[in-house]
Amino acid sequence: MSDLILKKRNGASLTQQEIEYVVNGYTGEQIPDYQISALLMAIYYKGMSTQEVSDLTMSMVHSGDTIDLSKVHGMKVDKHSTGGVGDKVSLIVAPLVAAVGVPVAKMSGRGLGHTGGTIDKLEAIEGFSVELTREEFFEQVNTKKLAIIGQSGRLTPADKKLYALRDVTATVDSIPLIASSIMSKKIASGADAIVLDVKTGSGAFMKSLDGAKDLAQTMVQIGKSLGRKTIAIISDMNQPLGYEIGNANEIKEAIEVLQGKRVEDLREVSLSIAAHMAVLGGVYEQFEEAYKQLEHILDSGEALETFKSFVDAQGGNVEQIIDPAKLPKAKFQIEITSDAEGYVEKLEAEPVGVAAMLLGAGRKTKDDQIDHSVGITLKKKIGDYVQKGDVLAIFHSNTEDVKASIDSFKGAISLTAQKIDSTPMIYETIE
Amino acid sequence: MSDLILKKRNGASLTQQEIEYVVNGYTGEQIPDYQISALLMAIYYKGMSTQEVSDLTMSMVHSGDTIDLSKVHGMKVDKHSTGGVGDKVSLIVAPLVAAVGVPVAKMSGRGLGHTGGTIDKLEAIEGFSVELTREEFFEQVNTKKLAIIGQSGRLTPADKKLYALRDVTATVDSIPLIASSIMSKKIASGADAIVLDVKTGSGAFMKSLDGAKDLAQTMVQIGKSLGRKTIAIISDMNQPLGYEIGNANEIKEAIEVLQGKRVEDLREVSLSIAAHMAVLGGVYEQFEEAYKQLEHILDSGEALETFKSFVDAQGGNVEQIIDPAKLPKAKFQIEITSDAEGYVEKLEAEPVGVAAMLLGAGRKTKDDQIDHSVGITLKKKIGDYVQKGDVLAIFHSNTEDVKASIDSFKGAISLTAQKIDSTPMIYETIE
Repeated sequence: MSDLILKKRNGASLTQQEIEYVVNGYTGEQIPDYQISALLMAIYYKGMSTQEVSDLTMSMVHSGDTIDLSKVHGMKVDKHSTGGVGDKVSLIVAPLVAAVGVPVAKMSGRGLGHTGGTIDKLEAIEGFSVELTREEFFEQVNTKKLAIIGQSGRLTPADKKLYALRDVTATVDSIPLIASSIMSKKIASGADAIVLDVKTGSGAFMKSLDGAKDLAQTMVQIGKSLGRKTIAIISDMNQPLGYEIGNANEIKEAIEVLQGKRVEDLREVSLSIAAHMAVLGGVYEQFEEAYKQLEHILDSGEALETFKSFVDAQGGNVEQIIDPAKLPKAKFQIEITSDAEGYVEKLEAEPVGVAAMLLGAGRKTKDDQIDHSVGITLKKKIGDYVQKGDVLAIFHSNTEDVKASIDSFKGAISLTAQKIDSTPMIYETIE
Repeated sequence: MSDLILKKRNGASLTQQEIEYVVNGYTGEQIPDYQISALLMAIYYKGMSTQEVSDLTMSMVHSGDTIDLSKVHGMKVDKHSTGGVGDKVSLIVAPLVAAVGVPVAKMSGRGLGHTGGTIDKLEAIEGFSVELTREEFFEQVNTKKLAIIGQSGRLTPADKKLYALRDVTATVDSIPLIASSIMSKKIASGADAIVLDVKTGSGAFMKSLDGAKDLAQTMVQIGKSLGRKTIAIISDMNQPLGYEIGNANEIKEAIEVLQGKRVEDLREVSLSIAAHMAVLGGVYEQFEEAYKQLEHILDSGEALETFKSFVDAQGGNVEQIIDPAKLPKAKFQIEITSDAEGYVEKLEAEPVGVAAMLLGAGRKTKDDQIDHSVGITLKKKIGDYVQKGDVLAIFHSNTEDVKASIDSFKGAISLTAQKIDSTPMIYETIE
């Protein structure tokens, strides 16, 4: 092992056998933490070749269970977002592509820190269960085209162990390590094809566009070299996506978009991802055609019907989908008003996400309980003009003491006298 | 700790408080191995400033006991070699400078791998004890000007722990880590001034002259910034020093040099180091004067008398010094002859050292026993002309099966038809 660290330290590439030895040895506890962390730091500085990242990805896939989706008919297209605030895209995209026949057998995660998780959001719906047996899961995807469950604890254990070590050794922000971590989970979950939503901007893990492009390219290369069609879009996370943050809040906004409501940024990102998925799934030939057709599906309410049927199948109360006012509601609705006037120049996603987390919508640590009823409704977004006293946001809270949240939220906003030019929602598509 | 790794990873300097926190936390087992190894790898790539290396050195000094040499009269000048084959310089230098009044209170180490240790060599003398009480040690230095004992187990425990971790995480060959490791031991041993012999060449840890210069400069800077006058010479280790390798063998050759014998390379390095020590010790003003005076001392036999008196004081059999033929002798003297003819172009120190180790003169692992009677006497060195059938070396062995040693030795030698230009023994002096 010492020789392998030396090899990587000096900038050479590790072979497939060597990478497998490292991953298996670490998972099997034959290689100690301190050698792995030294290797991770060497990888941080020296990077990895496409071949190495692919080999690392597959070694992590093989470290645990893999989901065999062969019982699900058709091309299984998965979707992954690198995480943002107000990112309820999966809740829109999944029923939308399912409505045109792309089977969605999705395993999703829970949220941590300032970003939320799809599973947490779905649990805001009364009775909704994310625990299906493997057979129920396959059966539901085959009949309803859509099922979403929690991630199995036995998927990619090597990735879990490596991530925990990276977290305490300053080796999280390494492109090959991030890319292989994400791709190993998608491949272990049985995806035939993958659409990636790489976020960039102040609220994203990748703050710079160059970093986001680098990560997207690395993941697309991994996908290709492992025989999975993979497309990545790079989308904006300089402000939260849509207007709602929180669990019930985001279910509500997803329903609105599924009803055809024009929440422009959210609708554009959702349609783009859905269109790529539908093309990879073989439903349409071209992205442009797919986008146009999916807009019709969205406006027709067909995707909403698929969503209802999916919620029903997983035990959720469909009444809450038909009338989102029946979703969990917080005790207090607190208006946050502006002390100044001007155009909103910044509305940083991260402190807004933290404000929602502090209300109880998210977890500071893994073991925290979340409150599905709380959250934030934004009333202004970047470019909007704000008068003194205008409502910037509504906090949905179960306590009246929301000082810490307000502090975080106010730190997120800045106003300017100049009109703000609009920036693109999707910077680039990498395939 | 994670933030400190990140700070160093991004190339910033750690403060004195931060370095102390790391060293104390690691020694006290509050910081786990895996964070330290990640930090060490970051240091490998990003280096350390002079201030950081000095702070690291002092933190390691303070991690354990320090020797208070205030009871020893005069300026205490220590000497350190980065390790080579046939390096018996300490055995010559110590009595030589003691003979002119520089007190030598030396703590030495044991050998590992292809290089030997002064303590092991001294134990080839019957009855010689390296275990004196602190009081006996001080008393002997004050009366005899010279005492050599083993290193205390409680000196620089942080360095020991860090070295063990570096050894298995490919972070040994980092100049700031090597430099602080060496200097911390010297300072903890109570040196007022230090002369360093940094070896360079194929048999040295630092193969390149540039690397050796870099290490020498770093150590001299540490010494200066910590108020210890420090001088380094960079000397050649492309072939073994002198003609004898092994424990009794090296005692014998040291005695010969102390008798005035012209073993040119060994005599030159010994006189240079001794001259620097004598200048730092305040005996002479100038290096050139010191060198000349010490040559006389050597030729007069005064240094040999000091050596005898020192051996006697530590319980050693002086008869073996008066007549080195009485030192432990191996059962077999095996002549290694040349299969070809030409000028000796290479006589690589490392495989020669390994050959001696395989005979039993050194330790492969820490727990190996060594045999003081075995070793190698070289009969030819670089530049010598060799006829077919000429004796290249004599192996002193206690078994007749020396095939592995011969293989290693023969791999060390190469001959050429061209005459070889002589190269300097001492490349540079850094102060």
